[in-house]
Amino acid sequence: TKLTLQMLPNSKIQSVNVTKFCLPTVNGTTGESPSLSVAERKALAEEWCGKARGRMDQVVVHVGAMSLRDSQDLARHAAQIGADGIAVIAPFFFKPKTADALRKFLQEVASAASALPFYYYQIPAITVPVMEVVEGIEQLIPSFRGVKFSGMDLMDLGQCVMHSQPQWSILYGVDEQLLAALAMGANGAVGSTFNYLGSHVNKLLSAFETGDLIQARALQVLPMRLLLVASFDVGVNKQLMMEVSGLHLGPPRLPLMPCPLERSEKILQKYRSLFP
Amino acid sequence: TKLTLQMLPNSKIQSVNVTKFCLPTVNGTTGESPSLSVAERKALAEEWCGKARGRMDQVVVHVGAMSLRDSQDLARHAAQIGADGIAVIAPFFFKPKTADALRKFLQEVASAASALPFYYYQIPAITVPVMEVVEGIEQLIPSFRGVKFSGMDLMDLGQCVMHSQPQWSILYGVDEQLLAALAMGANGAVGSTFNYLGSHVNKLLSAFETGDLIQARALQVLPMRLLLVASFDVGVNKQLMMEVSGLHLGPPRLPLMPCPLERSEKILQKYRSLFP
Amino acid sequence: TKLTLQMLPNSKIQSVNVTKFCLPTVNGTTGESPSLSVAERKALAEEWCGKARGRMDQVVVHVGAMSLRDSQDLARHAAQIGADGIAVIAPFFFKPKTADALRKFLQEVASAASALPFYYYQIPAITVPVMEVVEGIEQLIPSFRGVKFSGMDLMDLGQCVMHSQPQWSILYGVDEQLLAALAMGANGAVGSTFNYLGSHVNKLLSAFETGDLIQARALQVLPMRLLLVASFDVGVNKQLMMEVSGLHLGPPRLPLMPCPLERSEKILQKYRSLFP
Amino acid sequence: TKLTLQMLPNSKIQSVNVTKFCLPTVNGTTGESPSLSVAERKALAEEWCGKARGRMDQVVVHVGAMSLRDSQDLARHAAQIGADGIAVIAPFFFKPKTADALRKFLQEVASAASALPFYYYQIPAITVPVMEVVEGIEQLIPSFRGVKFSGMDLMDLGQCVMHSQPQWSILYGVDEQLLAALAMGANGAVGSTFNYLGSHVNKLLSAFETGDLIQARALQVLPMRLLLVASFDVGVNKQLMMEVSGLHLGPPRLPLMPCPLERSEKILQKYRSLFP
Repeated sequence: TKLTLQMLPNSKIQSVNVTKFCLPTVNGTTGESPSLSVAERKALAEEWCGKARGRMDQVVVHVGAMSLRDSQDLARHAAQIGADGIAVIAPFFFKPKTADALRKFLQEVASAASALPFYYYQIPAITVPVMEVVEGIEQLIPSFRGVKFSGMDLMDLGQCVMHSQPQWSILYGVDEQLLAALAMGANGAVGSTFNYLGSHVNKLLSAFETGDLIQARALQVLPMRLLLVASFDVGVNKQLMMEVSGLHLGPPRLPLMPCPLERSEKILQKYRSLFP
Repeated sequence: TKLTLQMLPNSKIQSVNVTKFCLPTVNGTTGESPSLSVAERKALAEEWCGKARGRMDQVVVHVGAMSLRDSQDLARHAAQIGADGIAVIAPFFFKPKTADALRKFLQEVASAASALPFYYYQIPAITVPVMEVVEGIEQLIPSFRGVKFSGMDLMDLGQCVMHSQPQWSILYGVDEQLLAALAMGANGAVGSTFNYLGSHVNKLLSAFETGDLIQARALQVLPMRLLLVASFDVGVNKQLMMEVSGLHLGPPRLPLMPCPLERSEKILQKYRSLFP
Repeated sequence: TKLTLQMLPNSKIQSVNVTKFCLPTVNGTTGESPSLSVAERKALAEEWCGKARGRMDQVVVHVGAMSLRDSQDLARHAAQIGADGIAVIAPFFFKPKTADALRKFLQEVASAASALPFYYYQIPAITVPVMEVVEGIEQLIPSFRGVKFSGMDLMDLGQCVMHSQPQWSILYGVDEQLLAALAMGANGAVGSTFNYLGSHVNKLLSAFETGDLIQARALQVLPMRLLLVASFDVGVNKQLMMEVSGLHLGPPRLPLMPCPLERSEKILQKYRSLFP
Repeated sequence: TKLTLQMLPNSKIQSVNVTKFCLPTVNGTTGESPSLSVAERKALAEEWCGKARGRMDQVVVHVGAMSLRDSQDLARHAAQIGADGIAVIAPFFFKPKTADALRKFLQEVASAASALPFYYYQIPAITVPVMEVVEGIEQLIPSFRGVKFSGMDLMDLGQCVMHSQPQWSILYGVDEQLLAALAMGANGAVGSTFNYLGSHVNKLLSAFETGDLIQARALQVLPMRLLLVASFDVGVNKQLMMEVSGLHLGPPRLPLMPCPLERSEKILQKYRSLFP
């Protein structure tokens, strides 16, 4: 129930000076947070923050919810339990129709935990251009620290990079074309496949950092080939996470269905052959 | 914060024998239930069920939620407070990919309040054909009593009518083309415009019932003309509901934005000219 | 290689007074006209107009093309060979972005054969609302006589009916939900399934005309059930047309592929069981 | 009426050894070929091939058409007039439903001019994955030399690169995110903005080639900023091409509309400020 998050220095573009690190985002998509009750999400966040203390650099808690009130409640809770940051997706039933409406919503959530670094998690279902959301947002949300960009419109991503402030992270979320986003200026990644491909992706990030595009491309091909067989699916992800971690994570909650045994066997076989 | 729901007898097709009536659905879209916390939704449902006792034939409570656990919690609560039925939309972040997954989800919610009549509220964002959801569902959910169909694919609606059981209601949810759905066999309607067009739509239903299509068509034209100006929007709906009811409903909650004054004035003017 | 076209009187709404008749549209979708060269289309139109003389009430030739120049050339040719009308779809690579651009395009085609009745064939790929195209179009195109409406937005259809002139036909093109469109005011139909379901659809039109909705609905169910198995596809249509007509029509032209034998056998079996 | 096409060496990946060059593609989208008759397209191709002789390295003629027969006719003509290659988009009214159908169509066109290098021009309206089209296509089309990839799915592009043969070109067509595609392994570009941004894009290609991503990114930002104002549109493109070339190109043909003067003035001003 975690997302691994990687970032890389890209000092020439952004004067950021961080090292690669593992930053679990609790209660994200892979963690099935939309299927959890508020109480379940709080319990999970507490468990993570407690266990991570002293062992991990940071824990970011995703507090996005359909209800602004729930989102604010989760944000306050994250601050109380010592989380290192919060991340928020926009509501997706009543979707914000304009950047202005979305910025107001994010501002309301951020203000409930104004001491915590704040990340906007974009999902393609929200069609407001990300560049319009982030341009000048540091005026509205002083704790703003970056965006997870999960769309395919890399001109929009490029504009976010342009509007980016020194302390921001522009993190890409479509794992199978991460290299393209890095070229456009993204300086990190958040994605569900990183739960089992984390060290592989670290190699890709290192290759890119040292300017070895040929190697980076060769490394990018492997996750592609896995996804040709697996395609994104929380049930499939769980199977692979169990394989790699040895932990028993249980089946997904309805309306998600578990990955059928035959299919998961085929996927695991592909995984083992690609990442021996 | 209500949806009006109308039904009409269509005895030749379905052997249903009900009369037109007003059936408020609490915590639906118009009521902004996706933007409310579980506690707020419970409070609202209680208020409605209490006030309606003795004054309304029925109150149906919408208990759909992203989390199955929340949905079951709300269903149990609806039974405790004496609601007359429950309605459920499918989760829309993790969407059910197959009719089977969706039916299992609905079954889990229904079983938490198995004594209450159960309605499936379809929304177009859920692309599973409704006919596949409802065919034989009475085997899985004995309390199943019907569907709110909000799509444009009227062949799918026609198939639902074909699979319909005597005690079911097939209610249409695209107000501006209700007449088309009635012709295809729908025997009622649920929609947000009915909060201010209820008596008008009752006339349309009566005209259709008596076989006067010319009159029904003339009545259908008026809501169309309103929607050409207004287009569906919770903010707009609120303005019109306030106008008609005289109640102060307050602004919508973020990420929804209130209807700008100038626009709402124009819409109210149109409303008054069409429905004097 | 024809589309059958049916119309019904709907005098109360539109003061049209025609009788049901068979009006083949040459060079439509079913006739694979987009896959034909201009010379092939001319040859086909000539053949039809020659053979139809004295045996059919009317022959309408579809002259829509990507190139305005080709379209005008085909329109002039239709006039020369004695066609009774022309029909035009909008170009669909460079799509008209506004009703104004589309109306200008249609006007240019119509002016090349201004003596012939003119029909606009709408396809859903062209997203300009039909009501905006037809409102007042008789000022621009005096020969305008109607529209084939193939979309699912029946409010748009209803608005076309409202703007309709006495001599216009509003013909619906989604065969499996024709009854819905008739209720909204359409007064006829054009569709590819009518090539083999023509007499069945005539019964549906008659039932609707006499006000027997129960019967009309029962008749509408049969094409639905065929389409559940067959789904629209020119290759499938050809198989069914061959079955009914006994004519050998040959395989479709690439990029269309013939219907695989096993599938076509299954569809024919369904057809024979539904329409014995 | 031309598309500029650029390629760059990417010897480590593909053992291609070309230098940057200008390769006009006649009768492409910018040239409004879908709006031209076959005769007009032939005249234009002849004019280009005649004028280019001795002055340009190559002229590629686009011969895609709705009708396979027209496409073959244009391909044969291209061979006769001494074109250096042909490019083909898939038909887009009847769209190929499978890679197999599309490959068969392309094969039929290629075989009409089997001595000419053949390029598949992908457009996003054709949803068959490009990787499925190109994998092993050299068996079916020995003259196959590459693909213009115009989609946003860069995993699909990455797979094309993987399946690419030494003599192929993988050319990207979404100008505003060209850098992303280069990182994924594309080795050139075809796009309508290159008609006025050609030398600028050559600088971007050079920067990428020498491994200077920082510079490449800075160069990529300028076309983005132009497109934020201009957005792709043949009418707009014509204005900019006239500005740069000094040639009078005339208005676009219906259903395209000319760019309104006020808008074109604003765009030209932006162009001049970005590319002084």
